[in-house]
Amino acid sequence: MDLDTALTSISPLDGEAMRAADERQGRLTKPPGSMGRLEELGTQLAGIYGVCPPPGPEPVAVAVFAGDHGVHAQSVTPWPQEVTVQMVANVCAGGAVVNALARQVGADVSVVDVGVVGDPPPHPSLTTAKTRPGTADLSLGPAMTAPECAHALQVGLDTAERLVGQGYRLLVTGDLGLANTTPSAALISALTGRDADEVTGRGAGADAAMLARKTDIVRGAVGRLAGTPAGRSGLDVLAEVGGFEHAALAGFVLGAAALRTPVVLDGVIACSAALAAERIAPGTRAYLVSGHRSQEPGATVALAALGLEPLVDLGLRLGEGSGAVLAVPIIQAAARLLSEVATFDSAGVSDGG
Amino acid sequence: MDLDTALTSISPLDGEAMRAADERQGRLTKPPGSMGRLEELGTQLAGIYGVCPPPGPEPVAVAVFAGDHGVHAQSVTPWPQEVTVQMVANVCAGGAVVNALARQVGADVSVVDVGVVGDPPPHPSLTTAKTRPGTADLSLGPAMTAPECAHALQVGLDTAERLVGQGYRLLVTGDLGLANTTPSAALISALTGRDADEVTGRGAGADAAMLARKTDIVRGAVGRLAGTPAGRSGLDVLAEVGGFEHAALAGFVLGAAALRTPVVLDGVIACSAALAAERIAPGTRAYLVSGHRSQEPGATVALAALGLEPLVDLGLRLGEGSGAVLAVPIIQAAARLLSEVATFDSAGVSDGG
Repeated sequence: MDLDTALTSISPLDGEAMRAADERQGRLTKPPGSMGRLEELGTQLAGIYGVCPPPGPEPVAVAVFAGDHGVHAQSVTPWPQEVTVQMVANVCAGGAVVNALARQVGADVSVVDVGVVGDPPPHPSLTTAKTRPGTADLSLGPAMTAPECAHALQVGLDTAERLVGQGYRLLVTGDLGLANTTPSAALISALTGRDADEVTGRGAGADAAMLARKTDIVRGAVGRLAGTPAGRSGLDVLAEVGGFEHAALAGFVLGAAALRTPVVLDGVIACSAALAAERIAPGTRAYLVSGHRSQEPGATVALAALGLEPLVDLGLRLGEGSGAVLAVPIIQAAARLLSEVATFDSAGVSDGG
Repeated sequence: MDLDTALTSISPLDGEAMRAADERQGRLTKPPGSMGRLEELGTQLAGIYGVCPPPGPEPVAVAVFAGDHGVHAQSVTPWPQEVTVQMVANVCAGGAVVNALARQVGADVSVVDVGVVGDPPPHPSLTTAKTRPGTADLSLGPAMTAPECAHALQVGLDTAERLVGQGYRLLVTGDLGLANTTPSAALISALTGRDADEVTGRGAGADAAMLARKTDIVRGAVGRLAGTPAGRSGLDVLAEVGGFEHAALAGFVLGAAALRTPVVLDGVIACSAALAAERIAPGTRAYLVSGHRSQEPGATVALAALGLEPLVDLGLRLGEGSGAVLAVPIIQAAARLLSEVATFDSAGVSDGG
């Protein structure tokens, strides 16, 4: 599926299925509204899948997009760049946090190398689709050329199409990439108009000096877009200040929405990519569920701009898809209520009227 | 296990296992502290089970304690009292919300009739241990006699002992009982000293007039305890203003703590019972995990008094154990991190030092 096809395929949620879900929620054996956010979520799932009750959102696939970033050279993180390729191998071997959490919820994890520096060892769970080994340094100029950005975005579209084709009914965003909270902050600042110091955080452990440098870099990079037509195009913003995994995640989200498949967003990297996707194709956000609230300040800004409220808020700041995976059983529970809970009539329970 | 045995068995968490867990959290392939609340939870589980890494908190048993309340006669809820016995049958048949959510997370649900008005049909999942059919009306005098309260509490102790004996390693509180948010509010007011209007809520759908009446009833009942020695004893407070399921839940929590088994608290009913348990045996709270933040205002007051922070906050106000069950995979994930995630050494990943 190419981007144009995706854009013409993304349509509003199914209003009839959503009305049926709302009506059904009121007949289940519980006080009306007493399941709070789970009721809204169940209705959203009915609207996405176009049927009430919605099918169980399973099987579940976590796609971990991995890339490196030229801006790493500016000492925006205490971790060496080689950690990206090492962590790709760790995720493939099943040893990372996202793997443990995915086993907990029965989700399958795969990795897509969309631009890592160095070559991870081949693995059945690894797809190699390198744009090139690391973006250019966004503190000095555009992170990507337009064709590079288009390549990475297409990798995300292809990944969504492949996973949905394999039968996955719930997609989860994952990411790996040392220094990738810097482009995330830049994307969020550029796409929301908020200042760099409102959206830049400590990532995987930046100290105060690193945070100050990172904030200056974000402000400078976003400044290049200010007042230009590029400042208003999702694709141009992605190319100027994003990363390969951000572009891929934007494509992944767009592809899922085009295929009427819900996507669970992880932390600040996914949220920044989703903002870009929503700029590229307004309405995409209807297909998104925010898995958790990352500790990174930009995540909260991006979620507010997307109108999304996270399901889980546990002070996480890891990435990989870890927080989103934690939310998977909640999403599945929301669908299950609509299909499995008895109604007042069927159970012979008096209602409150 | 009788209450005295439980009280002498409840001991502090295992400090050595907790130190080992904290140390291990720092060697896992993730930035230190990046899993937020999950790291604290994993350390708590190590302390409860007395070993690091902790075993998986499974299998999981949800015990739904059901009872009726004399105060129902005061029109504190729009729902008829017969809904309690009807909902017992619905839970036994697998048709209630708690059943759907328990299936999602692989938990087993059983019901204990500790004082329902009317007789639910026999069912393999139902234990009949009626104290009597409904408490006395707490707006007019003590809800229970001391022997009744002791009976209900013993039912909870027995239930914890039975489930742990069957091999369950994580217990979840559930409850059914029309009007049971009224005694919950009274317990929380009596045990925290907060005014009735800070802890009384709309329960399953009280309107403004009902809420005002309910608040007055809570204030009046709690007033009977003020300044008396009974006002300082957990057992006496339970008997004066509690319910059979509250006393049973207090016993359930005490029994679980005595058997070094973590308990997930559901909403305001469980929180009020846990407050009573902590008054009876200070230190019990170390064995508790708050599953979710109920919409009932008393739940937040009780959790603050217990020093517990909920894992999930989704605007739920159902009871049955539903919110607590949603948190189960998060608790299991916390244990899984300590046992399954690779260390920097083992995975060959550079650390951030």
